[in-house]
Amino acid sequence: MIGKIEHLGIAVKDLAKSEKTYAAILNTMAYKREIVESEHVETLFFKSGENKIELLQALSDASPIAKFIEKRGEGIHHIAFDVDDIHAEMQRLVNEGFQLIHDTPKRGADNKLICFLHPKHTHGVLIELCQEIRE
Amino acid sequence: MIGKIEHLGIAVKDLAKSEKTYAAILNTMAYKREIVESEHVETLFFKSGENKIELLQALSDASPIAKFIEKRGEGIHHIAFDVDDIHAEMQRLVNEGFQLIHDTPKRGADNKLICFLHPKHTHGVLIELCQEIRE
Repeated sequence: MIGKIEHLGIAVKDLAKSEKTYAAILNTMAYKREIVESEHVETLFFKSGENKIELLQALSDASPIAKFIEKRGEGIHHIAFDVDDIHAEMQRLVNEGFQLIHDTPKRGADNKLICFLHPKHTHGVLIELCQEIRE
Repeated sequence: MIGKIEHLGIAVKDLAKSEKTYAAILNTMAYKREIVESEHVETLFFKSGENKIELLQALSDASPIAKFIEKRGEGIHHIAFDVDDIHAEMQRLVNEGFQLIHDTPKRGADNKLICFLHPKHTHGVLIELCQEIRE
């Protein structure tokens, strides 16, 4: 089942500068910083109600975040929805006619299994499904 | 005080098509449709946890949504945060160095007073403040 918005991902050029900006807007401090090697990104998390705001800075030109910023500039990169069973939800959405960017979930930031829907079928929005890893 | 993410606004070309898409993703039906004359938009709302997803279709070329789509294509247009006192929050953010797009709140969809922060100071993200109108 698809759940709440788990987080919003914002692509930024400079994590330190954008940390100050979002601490001022949200009136709270970031509570977590994490490097995701597989995506070549460093991330920073803020809490906002039951959601999180994730700032993402590329660590190399190979990062999807570097490519996004080169093409569109800084801005909202993705919306992530909580799911309790990522495989079941991937299958449900494929059955509904959506296309997955990769066929098997990857390990993302914040102890999650993640998968993206292709934005060409979602009116330009990159949608992530994320499931807490239970170990 | 700035509160939770009230809604995410997604700019779309065709409300009927995108309604089907987001009903499938969110696994729920839209619960409200509303025209906002001042912005030349028709909007459609879905519930998602404590947040809402707002789809926005331009009703004329004069709409900010038409301009956004012409420049960037369909996609996430803004993040709106709940505030209990929009004037106080506008003043707090101006004091923090942010720039408002308009100096006084406007009437938006869903019985709200709204105001936008200029994206040049928010790392490319159009941020809306919205306060429920109490009458």
